[in-house]
Amino acid sequence: MSLIKEKVDQAIAILKEQNMDMWLTFVRETSGVRDPALDFLIGESDLTWPSALILTRTGGKIAIIGNLEKEALQRLDVFDEIIGYDTAVSGILKETISRLNPDRIAVNTSKNNVHADGLTHAMYEFLKEYLTGTPYPERLISAEPIINSMRGRKTSTELARVKKAVQITEEIFQKTFSHIRTGMTETEIAEYMQKLAAEHQVGLAWPAENCPAVNSGPNSPVGHNGPTDIKVEPGHLLHFDFGVKYEGYCSDIQRVAYVLRKGETEAPIEVQRGFITIRTAIEKSRLAMKPGMTGNSIDVISREIVSDSGYPEYPYALGHQLGRVAHDGGALLGPLWEKYGDSPKQRLEAGQIFTIEPGLAVPGYGYMGLEEDVVMTDHSAEYIGEPQRAIILLQG
Amino acid sequence: MSLIKEKVDQAIAILKEQNMDMWLTFVRETSGVRDPALDFLIGESDLTWPSALILTRTGGKIAIIGNLEKEALQRLDVFDEIIGYDTAVSGILKETISRLNPDRIAVNTSKNNVHADGLTHAMYEFLKEYLTGTPYPERLISAEPIINSMRGRKTSTELARVKKAVQITEEIFQKTFSHIRTGMTETEIAEYMQKLAAEHQVGLAWPAENCPAVNSGPNSPVGHNGPTDIKVEPGHLLHFDFGVKYEGYCSDIQRVAYVLRKGETEAPIEVQRGFITIRTAIEKSRLAMKPGMTGNSIDVISREIVSDSGYPEYPYALGHQLGRVAHDGGALLGPLWEKYGDSPKQRLEAGQIFTIEPGLAVPGYGYMGLEEDVVMTDHSAEYIGEPQRAIILLQG
Repeated sequence: MSLIKEKVDQAIAILKEQNMDMWLTFVRETSGVRDPALDFLIGESDLTWPSALILTRTGGKIAIIGNLEKEALQRLDVFDEIIGYDTAVSGILKETISRLNPDRIAVNTSKNNVHADGLTHAMYEFLKEYLTGTPYPERLISAEPIINSMRGRKTSTELARVKKAVQITEEIFQKTFSHIRTGMTETEIAEYMQKLAAEHQVGLAWPAENCPAVNSGPNSPVGHNGPTDIKVEPGHLLHFDFGVKYEGYCSDIQRVAYVLRKGETEAPIEVQRGFITIRTAIEKSRLAMKPGMTGNSIDVISREIVSDSGYPEYPYALGHQLGRVAHDGGALLGPLWEKYGDSPKQRLEAGQIFTIEPGLAVPGYGYMGLEEDVVMTDHSAEYIGEPQRAIILLQG
Repeated sequence: MSLIKEKVDQAIAILKEQNMDMWLTFVRETSGVRDPALDFLIGESDLTWPSALILTRTGGKIAIIGNLEKEALQRLDVFDEIIGYDTAVSGILKETISRLNPDRIAVNTSKNNVHADGLTHAMYEFLKEYLTGTPYPERLISAEPIINSMRGRKTSTELARVKKAVQITEEIFQKTFSHIRTGMTETEIAEYMQKLAAEHQVGLAWPAENCPAVNSGPNSPVGHNGPTDIKVEPGHLLHFDFGVKYEGYCSDIQRVAYVLRKGETEAPIEVQRGFITIRTAIEKSRLAMKPGMTGNSIDVISREIVSDSGYPEYPYALGHQLGRVAHDGGALLGPLWEKYGDSPKQRLEAGQIFTIEPGLAVPGYGYMGLEEDVVMTDHSAEYIGEPQRAIILLQG
């Protein structure tokens, strides 16, 4: 069975579970604005004209699309009923929804999860307009709970792909640590890692500009920015944030190394203390993760460990979900800040994959950030791949 | 000057011209849902947290973004004022807009042009909510006219890239026609063309699944679907729809060839009549194109030529704009059908690039569709590249 069929069947099971009559994904010209749910419904291809993809609780799989795209959709063998049109979608859409007569229609709009939020404001207005004179505009609600569960609960195929992405990322890190010499610039190291990814025939998990992020020493700007011409020097803490995309699924991992100064055989005590703080925060957070807990209840554990150790609070969430994109949506291991909406209040479910990634600065040395990827089982969170348990030492 | 700076300066000139105080692009987590205008404002990189990019008629270039993304935006050297935040965008956004006090705010929502329609419904609701207690929710209007002009009017840099994309596409077609033998499948031919594109180190103009479309003979399904295992045979009309992406800019070209049967030295008269009809429709349409005309007034010219020749009306628009995507938005050479909204009523402007692509079926032989790319000058439309003036004959 194709992954698309697998996920569509899973979505219908979730509709049943959540007692939702219909999930409607309404889109147009997806080469311009692409609804993230399409990856699960039709794969990578685009829909040109206004199109409605409908799944129902009773197992209905209906597509209303432009006639010139019927053939491509038939080949996918996912939708049982494909209704084509040439000039206007409105009448067919109204008829089809009226025939199915759902009590509630979950549509692709969401305040909390951008990956459930593909409906533009203009398309929302069209949808209401097309359904004028029916009770259905009043029955539109957010498909966020459906999409969160569907994106979150990885099938075995999806988990296998993320595992492979993590494994390739670990191999690339390994080779990179052997390759690094003092005097190399951040940019040179980043290019080397990208070359290794290309050799593995995988894509990058986010835009090449800052994938990997490489930070050498205390003066390198940390964040979503690309590497600089700063050179690796003895006494630098060297920090990486990197991920690859294997068959559409991402890894997202941070690693740290320390470049020994002359005479040093281990990292300075401040660096070691930073490492242990972060490593402890990750492990304690992971051990606390169980289905049914809120993401926020995990975030506070790590945040307290870092703060109690005297470091400033990191200005971002402890961890996000991982899947088709590096920052996948739904439940977030995060603080209750406006920018995160309700995501930190959502609950962990088996099958979800999370990053855990606290961070801190070690003054005079650089940035200490680790990021591990974990998968939720029925009762715990398990590392995918091997976590970094000790600081990597490079000869200066 | 970078292309981004060029386009941002152009956008500010368009704000002046259209007497619009402010253009606000409000986005979040653009790895999930990406506003198409971002390509022109920040390039290919993503913005993670709720972010506002503001251009003003008086030349203001202001970005409100997450602190961890300030560094990357500063490097772009496009925005004069970059305001970073850690937890909440609402207060800063309200303050900034209140300080600038615009009479009208053009936002990224549009009924007619998907490429001006990056604002999701949920983000629209946030925007109104964040501006509660100010007069600004009432002052929000669509940025469609701004974005249409900016996307449409190609700078010399943009035009040069499309020209290069067209040139590479022509080379690939040339080689492909020499390569084709009877017995090859549509899929084999498509793979050969994709291999040539890879050798040219260019991307494809739309998803690989149906780029190129290849249709051999009367039984090949025509539309936005990929090639099949149908084999090229003598007596087949062979139709291609293909485009490449060169430095972010697309070509989009259709070509036709006829596979001679034993003893034939030219295409059958029905095939020739089909070719002449389409070729005439293209040339007459092109000659009629002048700045200030509506797209619809051009569409009717071609549609009449094809209909008057006794062929059924093709169920799509005569031509669309071309740029960063194959189906770029704004003025459309199209009929007044619901699915096209008001785009066919919009007017042609110098600097726009259009496809012209009527089509018809020749019963018993296959699909006859040509597609040429043209650029609007101050007084006419000029071919980019060499149009197909005669049917290509392949030995059977």
